[in-house]
Order: sequence, then structure tokens, then C-alpha cells
Amino acid sequence: MPVKTVEWLGGIDGALRIIDQTRLPGRFRTLRLASVDRLWKAIRRLEVRGAPAIGVAAAFGPVLAAQKPRAADTKSLLKNVLAATRLLAGSRPTAVNLFWALARCRRLALASAHLSPRRFREKLLAHARLILQEDCAVCRKLGRFGARLIPDGAGVLTHCNAGALATAGCGTALAAMFQARADGKKFHVFVGETRPLLQGARLTAWELLRARIDCTLICDSLAAQVMKEGRVDLVMAGADRIAANGDAANKVGTYALAVLARHHRIPFYLVAPTSTFDLSLRSGAGIPIEQRPAREVIAPFGHRIAPPGVRVYSPAFDVTPRRYITAIVTEKGIIRSPNRARIAKALRRP
Amino acid sequence: MPVKTVEWLGGIDGALRIIDQTRLPGRFRTLRLASVDRLWKAIRRLEVRGAPAIGVAAAFGPVLAAQKPRAADTKSLLKNVLAATRLLAGSRPTAVNLFWALARCRRLALASAHLSPRRFREKLLAHARLILQEDCAVCRKLGRFGARLIPDGAGVLTHCNAGALATAGCGTALAAMFQARADGKKFHVFVGETRPLLQGARLTAWELLRARIDCTLICDSLAAQVMKEGRVDLVMAGADRIAANGDAANKVGTYALAVLARHHRIPFYLVAPTSTFDLSLRSGAGIPIEQRPAREVIAPFGHRIAPPGVRVYSPAFDVTPRRYITAIVTEKGIIRSPNRARIAKALRRP
Repeated sequence: MPVKTVEWLGGIDGALRIIDQTRLPGRFRTLRLASVDRLWKAIRRLEVRGAPAIGVAAAFGPVLAAQKPRAADTKSLLKNVLAATRLLAGSRPTAVNLFWALARCRRLALASAHLSPRRFREKLLAHARLILQEDCAVCRKLGRFGARLIPDGAGVLTHCNAGALATAGCGTALAAMFQARADGKKFHVFVGETRPLLQGARLTAWELLRARIDCTLICDSLAAQVMKEGRVDLVMAGADRIAANGDAANKVGTYALAVLARHHRIPFYLVAPTSTFDLSLRSGAGIPIEQRPAREVIAPFGHRIAPPGVRVYSPAFDVTPRRYITAIVTEKGIIRSPNRARIAKALRRP
Repeated sequence: MPVKTVEWLGGIDGALRIIDQTRLPGRFRTLRLASVDRLWKAIRRLEVRGAPAIGVAAAFGPVLAAQKPRAADTKSLLKNVLAATRLLAGSRPTAVNLFWALARCRRLALASAHLSPRRFREKLLAHARLILQEDCAVCRKLGRFGARLIPDGAGVLTHCNAGALATAGCGTALAAMFQARADGKKFHVFVGETRPLLQGARLTAWELLRARIDCTLICDSLAAQVMKEGRVDLVMAGADRIAANGDAANKVGTYALAVLARHHRIPFYLVAPTSTFDLSLRSGAGIPIEQRPAREVIAPFGHRIAPPGVRVYSPAFDVTPRRYITAIVTEKGIIRSPNRARIAKALRRP
């Protein structure tokens, strides 16, 4: 039974329901987001996280923005919608799916400004629902393509969470594992805990155990040793933004895994929808990297682990240059040895 | 003002005082260890940790063992001492300094069995004090040799804690940094937090701040990115056991740093006293690796971060093959490109 990471409840006057990912795995609770401000906070606080899931959640922002004021004309509602897209675009900087979804909503809203307020709101909701459904379909395709890369009996290493909790569907990298499991393959997954926010330990281990996939949790610094022991046949992770040349931003620690995989001659795969590509960027050098607050490193769960006054460097993401990437799995197929030409060609497919 | 990690209070009827390293940096408290059982627990619980410090602390075990029974003859005391060395040898398996110190104590005790009980006990105490003083002198030499490898303006990356808290003196890898600082060099140290027990965040950051050495705390998975940014000129860490060929066990995560340093063309140095060498082992394959309990990974500070039932792999150490090691700094000099012959030659020096 897959989780519903992002779900719309009701009609145009409804609200968004998300799983609070900051409380997992200790507590499973959902949050009802009934305003744009609350949605912005939820993205900002990582209550909803994962590049595709952020994009889908943000797509419902315009629906919430158009709920007030009650008796307004479409022009006023459009103004609210455009303000909402601007606000939400400032929530987190790296994952491009957010901007991709908001741009689609913005275009739809502008093209629907001639409709009645009610029809305008219906359009926005239908569009957000479409984005959600598309994401589910994309996840299934990612799973099918990705599963081909997981041999029977393999040892797989993954990082952070690229599962159902990172999407509206069944995930990106984890979708491949769920599909491989459904195909009857046996394999073992090493899950890097993913400091500082421990999405690997908290979320990925939880998803894999639910799916009865054999897994072992490790500290991030142990990945090299597990590779050296010959227990890893492939690395498979998600991505938050991929430049036109194939350089890819993903959760901090991914670049280390790519270098270590190269050194140990292990294939390194990223699994991401085409909405994660940012063709406006020539290379990964242009990807904005979110900096996280020091407290996430020095005081996990409020327990202080470092002396007062110590400086901290904590980017949320790092960029893996394309030459380390064996292949990128998209819903349009597998892009091997990704480069500008191969990516452009793959993305042109229907 | 250096810390006194291990200190003997009083005469032959005295006790060992250690800094409780499990409480740092939040709380500075010392523990009085007045029995062999309590000392065994302190080593086991990591209240005292760091290969050289464990060795020095263990050297006082025979002194404690010979305190009871009060009116015993030397033969009974010797029996107690030999039992104590056997018990303490079972406290932790990887750091060889422990076995080195205990073997010295055992030989001394056997050679002193003809003495009166009082003289026997005085001998044991004098010998333990000698081991402590030797460690302090060795640390100063490690510092002087190691400092030569830190250029002015350098970026240094270190892992775990190889400081005063890991020795009875001023440290191993950190001794080099303290000396470089005393020499007037300016440099910056990146401190890997060192999951699961966070010795980097808790202990190394604390020592560096006390010494007013410029430092930045990072999650372990960020080391590769900091190297890629060109901010690391050398990696410098300690070691827990070094085989005859130069393969070296150190805190888990060290092997990853060695591979990443090699990939980024950054020198990788280990700093360790000659008591860390185990010439009985041809290679690192023979080094016993301590496995740590899962709870240290899944429930740091009692806060559960992973779902119930998840499997954990948590070796305390990994082994870095000699070919990744640019040089090993010992108190007898710097062994560049360590191999069997160069190590044997260096260790023969007076």
C-alpha cells in the first residue's frame, strides 16, 4: 500500500494533505495545509521534501491562493495566484521541479484569466491534479526503466530518500527497487543515513522495510568500506537539478559516493523525471546550492554535540560532474554516459 | 593549558583520574577509577578512548590490581596483576597500543616477582608513570615532525579525535596542528563530525577552539565536496593499528577520506606513535575490527532516528591500504610512501 505523500482533499474549496516527514519514522502524522503561507512553511521546514514532491505540492499553491477573497473577480484571483507563485518560488532554491511546476501553473493561470472566477479556480485545481497524476505515471516509468539496472542478487547503495516520500507516486530511485522487487528479483540495499537530516535512516529505511526489501543502514562514512568489501554492485540515487550537460545536484554526500563508486569500478546511476532537468544551465556550476542552518549539524534533535561557537559549513546539496554518472534514468528512457547531445535527444522524445 | 586525559592521583594506594569523554563538550567532568573492573568499563564505554590514551590508562591497571588484598604476598599480587592484564586485553580489540602497554606491564611484573609486595607495587606504579611520561614525550615529537607537513595557509582535513584527549600528552595528528600554531603558522582545519559517536564534533572541535585554531565542522559526507572546492591541502588523522606493510586501521570513514584525497591529489598523512605498529601482522587484513552496537547508529542520544527492526552495520574502524598513505609520522621521523622495508628501518632507529 503506497503512501500518499501529497494529496488534495475536496473540491476547489479543499485543502492539501501531506505526510509530516519531519516526524517519521517515530510518528506517522498528516498535516492539512489550507493556505499558501502554510504550504510555503511546509516546504521550507521540509515537512514535504524531495524534488518531485515539492513540485507537486507547490502546484496546489495557486488553488489555495484563489480561494480568497470569496467574492473576488478573476482579475483579483489571478493577482493572488501570481503572488503565490512568487512566494513559493522563494521557499527552497535548488530543486528545479518547484520552478518547473510553478511556471506551468503561472502560464495556465494567465491563459485562464478570461474565465469566470469559478471556472478559473476549477482550471487551477484540474491542472494541479494533472501534475500530481503525471508524477505518479512518471514514477511508474522510472521504476520500470530503473529496475533494468538492478541485477538479481545485486548489492545496491542509496543515499537520502528518493522514494514515495520524495514524490507524489512511488518514488524515483526507490521506484526502481520496488519494481525490481515486484519482478521477483532478490537484492540488498545499503542505506546511507544522510546526515545532517538523516533522510536515509528516517525515511528510506522506513520505506524499504514497509516494502519488505532487505536493507542495512550505515553511517555515510562507511560507504567506501562497504564498496571495498565488494558488497555494492551499483549506486542508485535521485537528483534535485540536472544541468544541460548532465552535471547533477543531489543531497550532500552524493558527489562523494560518485567518486568512491568510480574508484571501486561500480556503476553510479541517478533516477529523476525530466522535470528535474534545467536546460537553461550549461553546467552544474550554475546550480544554486541551499545552505542549511548550523543547528542541524551541531544540535540534532536539540541535543548539542559540538562546542559553542564552532563554525559549520552545511550545504544541503552537492554537484556530481557528469563524467562520474554512468547513466541517468528518466521516464523517457535511460541516458547512458550523459552529455549535452544525449540529454537533448532524450528530452525531445514524446 | 593542555588537558590531563589520564592522570594518576597519589602513591601506590592512589587511583586513576580520567576525563569522561562521553560527556564532552557539554560537560567537563572527571572520573576516579579505583579498580580494574572500573577501568575496564571506562575503556569499554569510551569514557577514555584514543589508541595511545587507552594504552596509558591500561598501564595503571596492574597498579590497581596489586592494591588488594592488603596483606597478600607478591605471588598473590602477581596473580592479580596477570588476571588484570587478561581482563583489560578484552576491553577493546583494535587499537594495538592497549596490548603493547599490557605486554610491557606483564613482563615487568613477571621480572619483579622476587621483590617484596611493597617494592613490587612501587615498581608497577613507576612503570605505568614511565609509560605515561613516554607518551607525553612521544606526542611532542609527533607534533614537531607533523608540523613540518602543514604549510602556512593550508587547509587541513581531520577525522575523529587524534588530540590530547586521545593520548596522555598533546595528541598525535592534533599535536602537529598545535605545534604548527605555536610556530606561528596560519591554517584552517575542517573537522569531520565522525558518526556514529561524533568524536570530531564533540572532542576535536572542542580542542581546536580551546587552542584558538581556526576550524569548521562538517558532516562526514561533505569531505569530498570541500576537497573539490580546493579548500583542503592535506588530510591528517591518527591511527589505531598499523600492520608491518603500512596498512592502517583508524576510525571508520578514514578509508573513504584516503580514496577521496587520492582522487583530488591531496596528500594523506597518518600520525601515530611507534607503539601503534603491529609488526606481527603482514597486512591490514589481519587487523581485528571492533563492531559497535546498532543503537549508536539508530538511537543517538536516545533519540530514535530509524524504524524498528532495521539492520545496521557499524564497524568502529576501517583499514586504509598503504598505497593511499602519503606518509606516516612517528616519533622516530616521517615514513614517506610507507612499506615493509621503510617501516622496519624507521622502527629500528633509537
